[in-house]
Amino acid sequence: MNPETLARLKRASTATLTTQMFKRGFRNVFIQGVRPLGRYGENMVGPAMTLRYIPAREDLDVLEGFANPEHPQRKAIETAPAGCVLVMDCRGETRVASGGQILMTRLWKRGAAGMVSDGGLRDAAAIAELPMPVFCAGPSAPLNLVMHHAVAIDEPIACGGVAVYPGDILVGDTDGVVVLPAHLADQIAADAAAQEHMEMFLAERIAGGAPLPGTYPPNEATKALYVEWCRERGLTP
Amino acid sequence: MNPETLARLKRASTATLTTQMFKRGFRNVFIQGVRPLGRYGENMVGPAMTLRYIPAREDLDVLEGFANPEHPQRKAIETAPAGCVLVMDCRGETRVASGGQILMTRLWKRGAAGMVSDGGLRDAAAIAELPMPVFCAGPSAPLNLVMHHAVAIDEPIACGGVAVYPGDILVGDTDGVVVLPAHLADQIAADAAAQEHMEMFLAERIAGGAPLPGTYPPNEATKALYVEWCRERGLTP
Amino acid sequence: MNPETLARLKRASTATLTTQMFKRGFRNVFIQGVRPLGRYGENMVGPAMTLRYIPAREDLDVLEGFANPEHPQRKAIETAPAGCVLVMDCRGETRVASGGQILMTRLWKRGAAGMVSDGGLRDAAAIAELPMPVFCAGPSAPLNLVMHHAVAIDEPIACGGVAVYPGDILVGDTDGVVVLPAHLADQIAADAAAQEHMEMFLAERIAGGAPLPGTYPPNEATKALYVEWCRERGLTP
Amino acid sequence: MNPETLARLKRASTATLTTQMFKRGFRNVFIQGVRPLGRYGENMVGPAMTLRYIPAREDLDVLEGFANPEHPQRKAIETAPAGCVLVMDCRGETRVASGGQILMTRLWKRGAAGMVSDGGLRDAAAIAELPMPVFCAGPSAPLNLVMHHAVAIDEPIACGGVAVYPGDILVGDTDGVVVLPAHLADQIAADAAAQEHMEMFLAERIAGGAPLPGTYPPNEATKALYVEWCRERGLTP
Amino acid sequence: MNPETLARLKRASTATLTTQMFKRGFRNVFIQGVRPLGRYGENMVGPAMTLRYIPAREDLDVLEGFANPEHPQRKAIETAPAGCVLVMDCRGETRVASGGQILMTRLWKRGAAGMVSDGGLRDAAAIAELPMPVFCAGPSAPLNLVMHHAVAIDEPIACGGVAVYPGDILVGDTDGVVVLPAHLADQIAADAAAQEHMEMFLAERIAGGAPLPGTYPPNEATKALYVEWCRERGLTP
Amino acid sequence: MNPETLARLKRASTATLTTQMFKRGFRNVFIQGVRPLGRYGENMVGPAMTLRYIPAREDLDVLEGFANPEHPQRKAIETAPAGCVLVMDCRGETRVASGGQILMTRLWKRGAAGMVSDGGLRDAAAIAELPMPVFCAGPSAPLNLVMHHAVAIDEPIACGGVAVYPGDILVGDTDGVVVLPAHLADQIAADAAAQEHMEMFLAERIAGGAPLPGTYPPNEATKALYVEWCRERGLTP
Repeated sequence: MNPETLARLKRASTATLTTQMFKRGFRNVFIQGVRPLGRYGENMVGPAMTLRYIPAREDLDVLEGFANPEHPQRKAIETAPAGCVLVMDCRGETRVASGGQILMTRLWKRGAAGMVSDGGLRDAAAIAELPMPVFCAGPSAPLNLVMHHAVAIDEPIACGGVAVYPGDILVGDTDGVVVLPAHLADQIAADAAAQEHMEMFLAERIAGGAPLPGTYPPNEATKALYVEWCRERGLTP
Repeated sequence: MNPETLARLKRASTATLTTQMFKRGFRNVFIQGVRPLGRYGENMVGPAMTLRYIPAREDLDVLEGFANPEHPQRKAIETAPAGCVLVMDCRGETRVASGGQILMTRLWKRGAAGMVSDGGLRDAAAIAELPMPVFCAGPSAPLNLVMHHAVAIDEPIACGGVAVYPGDILVGDTDGVVVLPAHLADQIAADAAAQEHMEMFLAERIAGGAPLPGTYPPNEATKALYVEWCRERGLTP
Repeated sequence: MNPETLARLKRASTATLTTQMFKRGFRNVFIQGVRPLGRYGENMVGPAMTLRYIPAREDLDVLEGFANPEHPQRKAIETAPAGCVLVMDCRGETRVASGGQILMTRLWKRGAAGMVSDGGLRDAAAIAELPMPVFCAGPSAPLNLVMHHAVAIDEPIACGGVAVYPGDILVGDTDGVVVLPAHLADQIAADAAAQEHMEMFLAERIAGGAPLPGTYPPNEATKALYVEWCRERGLTP
Repeated sequence: MNPETLARLKRASTATLTTQMFKRGFRNVFIQGVRPLGRYGENMVGPAMTLRYIPAREDLDVLEGFANPEHPQRKAIETAPAGCVLVMDCRGETRVASGGQILMTRLWKRGAAGMVSDGGLRDAAAIAELPMPVFCAGPSAPLNLVMHHAVAIDEPIACGGVAVYPGDILVGDTDGVVVLPAHLADQIAADAAAQEHMEMFLAERIAGGAPLPGTYPPNEATKALYVEWCRERGLTP
Repeated sequence: MNPETLARLKRASTATLTTQMFKRGFRNVFIQGVRPLGRYGENMVGPAMTLRYIPAREDLDVLEGFANPEHPQRKAIETAPAGCVLVMDCRGETRVASGGQILMTRLWKRGAAGMVSDGGLRDAAAIAELPMPVFCAGPSAPLNLVMHHAVAIDEPIACGGVAVYPGDILVGDTDGVVVLPAHLADQIAADAAAQEHMEMFLAERIAGGAPLPGTYPPNEATKALYVEWCRERGLTP
Repeated sequence: MNPETLARLKRASTATLTTQMFKRGFRNVFIQGVRPLGRYGENMVGPAMTLRYIPAREDLDVLEGFANPEHPQRKAIETAPAGCVLVMDCRGETRVASGGQILMTRLWKRGAAGMVSDGGLRDAAAIAELPMPVFCAGPSAPLNLVMHHAVAIDEPIACGGVAVYPGDILVGDTDGVVVLPAHLADQIAADAAAQEHMEMFLAERIAGGAPLPGTYPPNEATKALYVEWCRERGLTP
């Protein structure tokens, strides 16, 4: 990833990013039904590596399968590149886990930027203590074999109702996770940074008592004040 | 609002209020699916101002529309009277926001008593820090235009499966939000205050080891003890 | 309950217990949709006492009914044996409460080990402060009479999609609640204790940088290290 | 059952019966989510016999169990009294069957008036050909053991969100199934018969071009015409 | 309505119309969850008149209210202009009826083109026999007062997840109901007619054994054959 | 496919097949939420070819894409081998179509044995007239591009909550569709044929008035009668 884009996306809210995507004609970009397990100091940002599950079948999905290093769930974690966000397609199935403390710890040790699953996670309290941001549908103790069969790595998938292509840039904050197509990430990051400055200015104005009309969205007078505000802070309006 | 009613409802639990409504034949008074975003020191209490959304249409619901001061979402906030609770009918749609930090800040600055939406809210962490109680279905980053068209102010609406008429009294605590018809608010507030005293007394008795039979509900002996308990505290039994 | 089993289950995670059940052919053992209301220092563990609700009927489910000490909801709490976990079958109905502060306080005073309901609870913030673990579908203020009729005690029931027979051992932690058939509890507790030691060792190895292959699941070399690790700690591998 | 009540309920629509129940303060009387499997010439009417299922457990719910004549599912059918309606509480679980062709055929041979299940049925096309009315949530092939454990006969149950007490009178037509408390059946049947006559008259008036105001509900003039209409047909107005 | 547009929309499939809307950037135009109650010889087509319900309140929604000719449900039907489609916003509530045989008969007698409700209907079998097309979520016997309060006529509403503005053109066939903005109806009808001709030609080609590539979508050769096909039938390609 | 297996599965009910799978330890084999669109004279039977969709993205999923013969949806149909059942993974999304009349006609012309989609289909009435069995979640007019992106052919997929591997044998009747692992198909078909004979005999017995005990399941006496019954019909018991 472009380091400037990475830096900008660390500071952009998912609210701002969905607006930027909307301006470009994208309406379905927010992974539904996932929440951060812990409290994280900054945004999760990174390119997607994907893992796809299908429903389990009793003869195939047995504990012995994990001994095989080619088992896609284990291989996904063991081959995840540093800086990536592992994204799991669990078909929105919240009744079982898609991973637990040991796997999430290994993912963190390998340098991943984060994890998003539209399924559950077991050992959720322990995972919430990791420094790596993890988003999922909630705690769920049953092991993944009860309902999931890990089938493939780095295919296009669905996660929380949104298409995720390998390499898409995922950004997560306390509101949730947004998916940005890789080829748009730099441009959106730049525009989002500008929008964030403007919104910070507008939030100050509103907190100071300004009315919505003329302020949000800003009219010419407010825009002029914004230029002034930026100048004082050494920002590019 | 009657100031005594306001004061009483600030101290009555929504649990008590639903019981008072049940006694009067009302069974569907609790807004389903909404939770407080922050931790608030006291109940949210105020008369409802309403805002109704319908599904968005791509040609009508565009960013440019917000520049119009008559846009119902913006106008609702800008005309909300001090002390009111703004209630939004989002058809229970949780996949997008029905507002964000700037709008909620403005609503607070205008003196509103609180906000209830059966949809999502963006910038949820920032909104949770406001001193004004806000209840919604949860954080959701996408802007409202993706799924909502603000259509009208101060019509009777549905919110979380409950009818809300403009002027109905809304009361919210950590359990959620109850809707009281305006003409019943004074009477319910008075009866709720009495019930709260009794329940405080009973909770003390139970915490002290009293059994349920005879205590909850109270028999004549327990009622006599309650009269005593009230006298010691200068309360009217 | 066997005191050693009780002690072991206090320390076993529900994740581990679902794996032990899976090894024995049980796939549906985790009560879906319930969460702990408070933060508890240790697991909830105890044999199930059950309470079954059916939908309310307006002529039968009236406030006056609670004066009858034979009312099953009140009787369940008043007869709950010390150490038990009261489990309520609310048909997953989250729109009303299945109990409140006074009833939960009484249950705690009677020495119950905990409570699980797949319905809501009112006065949830107060209940969260009790030292007794309580799991439910979330806060909900309306009284149970709006939708529930308490019909029977200590029948086999459904709770959160799982069969619960009176006497089954329930174990709850931050992930949720697992149901163990009574006749398997001792054996599962013993095996879970062993699994917990192994997982603690493996988690240390992974946190220290070991890769998944060879570690999780452990190969012969890792198993040998585990024997060593146990010896150092005076544990039986 | 009172034969006159039986005869009247055979001709009353479930629409009319829900209105009669509403007049008496009952709002939740219609079994949600069930449809007739076949086309039946007349209403299903009869007192409820109930069967309750809970979730299956792998060690208990095995094919061998059906050889036991005390198995509650088999016993329910084999002991169903002539004229009864067997009502099954499947917790609204539609993913598996609660019975099939052989059991429904036996129920019919025993003289049952019908069957209602809020779960699925297998062999649905064959069951639809039986002369006995059968209502369920739809066709579903998997055997009940996959998800159900038959636990008890003639307990109060939930079916489609409604309380059903053994002996309640169930009435089913093409709209669905309504539950009448046994002690109200005679009175409701009589009032429903009168309402049906009035509605037949009103439907004729409306089909003939009469406007709603004055006709539906009827004003004094329309009521006078109704008296006339009844006299011509030898009916009691 | 333009008579040519009316005639064209009578023959256009809702599949074709959603494609025409998609070409113009509209993605959410199909009323979800409704089905035709009967079998109708031709499409339902007409401008929308709307009726909005909110949840019922026990003190307001009583049988006596229907005697008031200003009751919005009754007034909607009694003032529906000939040729219109009455559209009811029931918040997708399927547990009760939004109308019954008498109201639908009166609507037909008044010359309405059809009715769409995202709620249930009682007397569904009788309504299915009317010559007027009626679409709803399915049969449901309980009267509307159990859950609905008719609040307003000819406001913009939601129906089945789609915005419906008074005057929008609704078209229904066996697949369901599509909503066309009034100002686009003529153009869409014209383009849909052309698309229908092309699809009829293509369906013949495919039924005759032509492969998809080159045929669907058509390449230049297929388009030339289509021009020929049109000429033979006196159609404008 | 083994022709004898094919012939046997044409006559076996999905009810019988789920029982055979249950006997072998498979509990999740029935595709949930799909129904046959038409009435078909015999079972749909064939090996699965699969097509996987993920959510649409506005820049990728445009009408122009269909001109590419490599578009997976079009290619799946154009390369489907004779006798196969095309199975589509639509993530259970029922709001849009996964195909329409022209595609289904082409699939039939290519000799496919049938189609199963856990999404909707447009032109459903026309598809119901095809001689090829088609199962789906119901009619839905909007084109697939609104919500689907066809991503791959012949990968393992989920359909209606069940794993489907390419080559699995799918069998559909009026109850729905069951999935059989390819390597078990011959054995299951043989056992199902035997079970069907027994059930036919038992159904006759029950229709003739035999009680459940001793008949269903059969005791030794009934089994002896069955041997006789088979001998009379030239069947192997």
